Parts: sequence; C-alpha cells; structure tokens
Amino acid sequence: PGPEFDRIREMIAAAGHSAQHIGDDAAVLDIGSPEKLVVSTDISVENVHFRRDWMTFEEIGYRAVAVALSDIAAMGAMPRGVIVAYGVPTADSSALNDLGRGAGTAALVSGTFIVGGDISSSATVTVTATVLGVAKRPLLRSGARPGDLIYVTGILGGPSMALKALKEGKAPLAAARDRFVRPVPRIREAQWLSQQGATACIDISDGLVGELWHLASASGVELRTGLHNFSHFAGVTIQEALVSGEEYELCVTMPKEVDEALFAARFGIPLSCIGTVAASAEPQVNLGIATASKTLEPFNHFANDHQ
Amino acid sequence: PGPEFDRIREMIAAAGHSAQHIGDDAAVLDIGSPEKLVVSTDISVENVHFRRDWMTFEEIGYRAVAVALSDIAAMGAMPRGVIVAYGVPTADSSALNDLGRGAGTAALVSGTFIVGGDISSSATVTVTATVLGVAKRPLLRSGARPGDLIYVTGILGGPSMALKALKEGKAPLAAARDRFVRPVPRIREAQWLSQQGATACIDISDGLVGELWHLASASGVELRTGLHNFSHFAGVTIQEALVSGEEYELCVTMPKEVDEALFAARFGIPLSCIGTVAASAEPQVNLGIATASKTLEPFNHFANDHQ
Repeated sequence: PGPEFDRIREMIAAAGHSAQHIGDDAAVLDIGSPEKLVVSTDISVENVHFRRDWMTFEEIGYRAVAVALSDIAAMGAMPRGVIVAYGVPTADSSALNDLGRGAGTAALVSGTFIVGGDISSSATVTVTATVLGVAKRPLLRSGARPGDLIYVTGILGGPSMALKALKEGKAPLAAARDRFVRPVPRIREAQWLSQQGATACIDISDGLVGELWHLASASGVELRTGLHNFSHFAGVTIQEALVSGEEYELCVTMPKEVDEALFAARFGIPLSCIGTVAASAEPQVNLGIATASKTLEPFNHFANDHQ
Repeated sequence: PGPEFDRIREMIAAAGHSAQHIGDDAAVLDIGSPEKLVVSTDISVENVHFRRDWMTFEEIGYRAVAVALSDIAAMGAMPRGVIVAYGVPTADSSALNDLGRGAGTAALVSGTFIVGGDISSSATVTVTATVLGVAKRPLLRSGARPGDLIYVTGILGGPSMALKALKEGKAPLAAARDRFVRPVPRIREAQWLSQQGATACIDISDGLVGELWHLASASGVELRTGLHNFSHFAGVTIQEALVSGEEYELCVTMPKEVDEALFAARFGIPLSCIGTVAASAEPQVNLGIATASKTLEPFNHFANDHQ
C-alpha cells in the first residue's frame, strides 16, 4: 500500500482500460462461484525487504509468503492456495530448498498449500508470492462508518526495534526479531472479527499511521484515535510503534464493542480499541495527543532501501 | 517446464505435505465453482529472460504477461485476470509506466485485465506475472492417448533466429524479433482445439523436443513424429527450430484429424500434424529421420543466462 499503490495507480492509468478492480489489499474477482475470489501478490527483494545476513533463506521464504497471506487475512478471506516465483543467483541455487521449505511452512500454518510456482536465476534474490483466497463478504478499506470503533491486533513496534538493531549491526531482541522475520498472518482473527460484523480492515504493513490514512481516505471519514490504549513493545516509543512498518497486524473497524478479553484468550494476542470513526467532509486522521509534537511519515519501502 | 519444474519438485519435496496440485503448465484448483480455477506464474528476469538493450520496457512488460497467459492457453482455459509484480531499480522507476503499459496491452489482447500488483525497487529488473483463468475441462499433459494425432500451431524458429542475431550483436529479422518480443498467447486457438476434443496440450516455451518429452512422460506414451510436415522459419534449420525455446506456440494431441485449412483461415497461423501417439511400456519420443544425426538438448533458462 501507500506509495506502492500510488505507483500502481500510475501504471494502471498508463495501461488504460485494461485495468479493473484495483485498490484494496487484494483484488476481488467474481468468477461465478458463491464466494468471491480474492487475490494478492507481494514481491520481496534482497536489500529492500530483507538482507541475507539478517535472516536465513528459510526465513526469507517464510516471510515472503506470510506477508502475502496477511493481505488475504486483511480481506477477511480464507486462503485457498499460494503460487511462488523465485529468482536466485545460479551459484546459490541450493538456497531454493530452504526458500521452498520456508514458503511451505508459511502456507501450512495458515491452512493452505503451495500450488505452483516458477524459478529463474537472478542476480538479486527475489521471492514473489501470490495468494488466492475466497470470501463471501470481502472486507474492504472503504467500509468504515461513523460510530464504528477502531481496533488493532497484536503488540506493535517489534519489527521497528529489530530493524533498528540490525541496521546498527547489533543482535536484535529475540521477540522483536521474531516479529520481523516470522510474521503470523492473522487469518483466523480476521475471520472471527468479520463474523462479529467488521466493517473495514487493513493490514499494518506500512505502519499504523499510514494505514489509518488509507482507511480514512477510502471510507471518507475521520478516524479519532486515543493511543494511550495501544499495545506496543517496551523499548520502542509510541511514535516509533506508530510508524513501525512490516507489522502484519490488522487495523479493523467494528460497529460495536468487541470482547477484548475473549479475543486475547482465543488468539493469544491483544486486541486494542484505539478510537472511533466520525463523519467528516474530508478524510481525516486525528492522532490525539500522542503525536502532537511530531510529524510521522508512513513507512515507505521505496525510500528505505536497506542498503 | 523442464529443469525449472524439476527444481520446483525438489522444493516441493522439501516443503513436505504443504504442496499439492503441481506439475502442468498451470495449477488447477477447485474452489466450489462450476469451472475449475487455473493459475500460472512466470518470472521474467533481466539478463536471463531478456536484456534491456534487446527490447524496450514496454516490450518487457508485454512479454512477461504474454508468457504467463500462454500457460493459461495451454490449459485450454479462459483468462480472468492478471496480477503483476515489478522489481525495478529506484533510478529507473519511470520505467514502471512503460512496463505497465506493455503488461496492460498483453492482458487486453487476450481479453483480460490487470487486476492487481506490487512494486519494489530491485537491483535487477524483474517482472512476475500471475494469471488466473477458468476452464470446465482443463487440458493436461497427461491426456494423450494411443491413436491420437499430434499437432503444432504456428511457425517455429523465430525466437531462436532472433536470439542468435541479438547475441551476435546483429539486428534480427523483424518477423523473427517480433516472435521473440511479442509472443501471442494462443488462447482462442486452444479453446477451439479443446472444443474439437483435444486430449492433451502444452506450450512450447522450452522448445518442441523438450515439450514432446514432457507430454510423452506425463501421458505414458510414445510420440512418433514425422517432422517433414512442420512449419518453421526459413533461415533456421529444422534442428534449430525443434529446440527453439520461447515459442509460446501449442503442441496438442487430438483424437481425430483437424481441418488444418479451416484452422489457418480462422486464426491466421498454420496448424501442422507432426505425428501420432502410440502405446508404449516406457514414455518415448521418436523424432523420425530429422534428428537422427544430432542430440538435441531442450532449451534451458538456467543454463542459458544471456550474460
């Protein structure tokens, strides 16, 4: 999302009327079945999304597929298959086994399978995962309504902590590293929230602030947050946690209160109510006092090459 | 196919029971609709599948999508959407417009749309196209039966001629270059052949010889070809045309004779009967006299880095 999607829209404009159904975490297609087909693709590139000295090939494969599955989760869809294309230098072709094992594990833990793929030699290690899912009622970004409550899953800030340490050549805290290299797509959580009536959903791949903007814009509403209630890693500031990208937690709007204790007991992660949706002539995000003193830039892959 | 698929199988083995439905030009998924969902992905990498000084970014985008659509054609399926992931160096991000325009054109000429995508910076230009299609009766490689006739669409050898000239730093013949940079997925042709009862189909991305082996192996039959009847570019030998990769024509087995003149009139390309299918204890390809004097290696991306 974010700048990536702006570029896709540019390209789409260039491609003229050959483009349709663009915009959410995943594309929604009607192929004549009772459920809608939901499709998303994510490209993971060496020195942009990962560095080989930061994680193993198995972790790279896992992460690439988990990230794509997170988009399916954000649509409230159930995954039905993963297709993976690998580009690996000829000299490292043995890495394919590890990449494949990691990719397979990520599919398996989300209850799905690798159903196909392609392989090429490539100077740059690249893993592109495309996930197919189905949903009776896909959750879009545009569904937030005035009066809804805004919830966030999980504990934010881990990937940001891990990345900071890695960039400084330090060993990251194990729990923070784990959140960066082994994100867990919130498939079951999204299903459950959808059954409770969720009106809109988005995953936090570009950081919470950026994603709140995407939700506000797509739904044409104001999002009023009170972030004192928001779960983040000790050791990151609330500002760092707010812009921590690569989270793959969910931000969801609900028409009524959700039992947070029940959610935590069921899924082993917190669910935090961080605000409300209000009617507005213009899309707005009101971050409350927490960010009054700081301009927060959404996380941006293209501007943050890790090299 | 070929060595690529061998590697995928290796990876799949490493991924254990998280893999299913692997093997043909595309994966086939049952998602509860009357038609089967057919999915294929193709990765196109700079200096492996193309060189930037050999074709424009628009042609690179077109070709990457057309190649993926060819797999959908080979399954006798109708395309229903294309997802494209682009990796481009930050300094060349303006190329995304041209890549996207080319990708959109390829989708459009096959009657479908770009429905989603992803973008990243990448040191190596990479385009990964995933195509979704639907088919009531997907054409598999395993369907060839003793007594069937073997047909090939189009005029082979153009890409091989073009690649030879390009590698020698010469300007290729325009018609040959066109076959290399603007392959046309044989969607309508495959639909028509499927309606005429086609039993098996494969696209000729790895060269006719290699693909005949894939058909023979998957179907457990002997393929007996008489290649005097086979259409190839003037200026390439029959041996060159037989192993010319990147063709994206179709090799199809039919239970009875097809009206070749009608096919040519309807689609503007020849359809050539090149042999028959025979029962065999072991999969075999008998290439007749044409190749008696030469060992022909299937075209192999991994061994043929163009750098």
